[in-house]
Amino acid sequence: MSLLDKLDAVAAARKALLPEGIDVFGIPIEEVYSSTEAKIDDRRILFLGTNNYLGLTFSPACIQAAHDAIDNEGTGTTGSRMANGSYAGHRALEQEFADFYCCNSCVVFTTGYQANLATISGLAGAGDVVMIDGDSHASIYDGCRLSGAEIIRFRHNDMADLEKRLRRLGERSRSTLIIVEGIYSMLGDRAPLADIVSLKNTYNSTVLLDEAHSLGVLGETGQGLVEETGLIDEVDFITGTFSKSLGGIGGYCVSNHSQLDQLRYISRPYIFTASPTPATIASTRAALKLLQAGTELRRQLWKNAHQLYSRLSELGYQLGPEVSPVIATILDSPQQALALWKGLLDHGIYVNLILPPAAPEGKSLVRCSVSAVHSGEQMDYVGEIFAELREVIQ
Amino acid sequence: MSLLDKLDAVAAARKALLPEGIDVFGIPIEEVYSSTEAKIDDRRILFLGTNNYLGLTFSPACIQAAHDAIDNEGTGTTGSRMANGSYAGHRALEQEFADFYCCNSCVVFTTGYQANLATISGLAGAGDVVMIDGDSHASIYDGCRLSGAEIIRFRHNDMADLEKRLRRLGERSRSTLIIVEGIYSMLGDRAPLADIVSLKNTYNSTVLLDEAHSLGVLGETGQGLVEETGLIDEVDFITGTFSKSLGGIGGYCVSNHSQLDQLRYISRPYIFTASPTPATIASTRAALKLLQAGTELRRQLWKNAHQLYSRLSELGYQLGPEVSPVIATILDSPQQALALWKGLLDHGIYVNLILPPAAPEGKSLVRCSVSAVHSGEQMDYVGEIFAELREVIQ
Repeated sequence: MSLLDKLDAVAAARKALLPEGIDVFGIPIEEVYSSTEAKIDDRRILFLGTNNYLGLTFSPACIQAAHDAIDNEGTGTTGSRMANGSYAGHRALEQEFADFYCCNSCVVFTTGYQANLATISGLAGAGDVVMIDGDSHASIYDGCRLSGAEIIRFRHNDMADLEKRLRRLGERSRSTLIIVEGIYSMLGDRAPLADIVSLKNTYNSTVLLDEAHSLGVLGETGQGLVEETGLIDEVDFITGTFSKSLGGIGGYCVSNHSQLDQLRYISRPYIFTASPTPATIASTRAALKLLQAGTELRRQLWKNAHQLYSRLSELGYQLGPEVSPVIATILDSPQQALALWKGLLDHGIYVNLILPPAAPEGKSLVRCSVSAVHSGEQMDYVGEIFAELREVIQ
Repeated sequence: MSLLDKLDAVAAARKALLPEGIDVFGIPIEEVYSSTEAKIDDRRILFLGTNNYLGLTFSPACIQAAHDAIDNEGTGTTGSRMANGSYAGHRALEQEFADFYCCNSCVVFTTGYQANLATISGLAGAGDVVMIDGDSHASIYDGCRLSGAEIIRFRHNDMADLEKRLRRLGERSRSTLIIVEGIYSMLGDRAPLADIVSLKNTYNSTVLLDEAHSLGVLGETGQGLVEETGLIDEVDFITGTFSKSLGGIGGYCVSNHSQLDQLRYISRPYIFTASPTPATIASTRAALKLLQAGTELRRQLWKNAHQLYSRLSELGYQLGPEVSPVIATILDSPQQALALWKGLLDHGIYVNLILPPAAPEGKSLVRCSVSAVHSGEQMDYVGEIFAELREVIQ
């Protein structure tokens, strides 16, 4: 079979799952009104499925910083960080992230996806082991694949399973990278970090924590799960992204291990890509300041998260195991999930639809993400519509 | 050995190669004055090692477009193209690229690195073969590795070697993706596209051409090598980047095969990454217009390329096999290359240093990249300094 025939087969399988006439994956956003509202299909809709947790994409300070950077430094760097792409702003942002985490080193990457790809494939290689949670994000999985290390998955958040697999490795546990996430993107639950750190110490492994969904969300100053748990000194490497709570694009890794800086010389997804644009670096620097000072934003974010989680729970929707800004409604079939997703959109609410095999354990998800800047009225309206649709989706 | 001990070994090996006191890889750009000038180490220097081929990073039209997009749509989309990250601009840019190449389909990616990663790992998989040139860019190699396909390298631009390897595959040549580049980034030479297309047809393979360094550089309207050779209808997939001649960040794939659109549903580096920022999409759309109309820019670019290539050749420097905006001086030892690179910098000229194993065949390179906006005076000055350093570097 030729390469193209194979893609036709994929297309046929995909088509059988999805309804005609609506682009469920890649819905056209015709206009953007604010961090929480946009035009879809010529109608005003409420965004309840973005990663704009703090609503900073329209922050005046971030926008002004981006404008200034474009005027002063142009639209792009046209070069890798290894060549001509390390501007003063790139280095300043690295220093600011290192200071934020009170860590020695930080490396900034062009996307969050590439942050995981670069860090994991830089740290682990052939002969090493990467031990990853079953619900890991695709960027973690792809980073592992690129690394050439042996990939072992443990059952999602199952510490007995993790320990069993570490024990089996014997001496190899010393060259093992355990990778977990602050908040998992599918069900919104946290990694049991204290247990993971304890196992890492017992087995002399190294641990990498991805704070993609928890940066700006957890902890007094928004560092993430490391701050909420007080375990920052126990985690070897922390990665995260600029495209969620920081409202930009890019990613970072921070560490107290001086070896992090060696990634600049060996990690291909860092070396062989153009560096972030001046506008993105500038808006992210401004956003990081707002994030650190964003106690009130986080209070509002969690208020919205608790309100929606409680409401959906009362209505009898099956939800993830704990409250977080990522609130997933778990449906038994793709058809049910599609009906709920479509019902919400018909009522002007945009959420994410996740069908097998993307969702864990063959489930289908309708995933909401709340933002600090969703108003009380918006949250009330969302609750009403979920109540209305409860009758339809059984 | 632990993961961190291994990185220490890498650091020691790296340190032995490089001089103290100067960050050869990742030199700090303290301020940017224009597309061709910046401040390094408190001195005004000439950029002769960026990929800013048309000098568009400070184009007023691109800058204005970026400003407008930031005001209207914010600093980022905070979502994947699969979720809330497909704005009107993202779709318009895809249509404009499709129109530019007179192709049916285009998919836009967040970085050029991810364009190759996503396209290659989307098109090829386990059981397939990817046949790549020995001088392929790292993003091509990483895309192949991620795909799970069998990777076969043929000798750089050696058509007899390519044919031998295709022949050996037998029936498997039908599920083989041949990957070549318009202009190779190391020595600046072109792929022999007519021969490659002829082999692809003989062996019923599929061909992907990466126009990263040739977009905006080759062909009457800047399509790249496909336009210069008139072979656009013979190439199955074309990828390229926004971070060189277009002065932004991101990448694209265009094709007449409708199957390209299936990548949106299966290609992980497309799905699991935030979409490009509104500013980047807007500046890239403006730059694409300028690129297409940029006949005069291309004339100036090639004038500069011919002038520098001739001058260096007369001076006795060993160069790549043909003239292009990428002009590599080939040195026998890393020490020589480092001395030339440092000599140029001391005279206010920034170029790229490429040491083994990054350069082909164990060579060391001092690589210049000329831009359409380098002035005659700047080019003359570069020639003078290379002449002066000729005595030193033997």
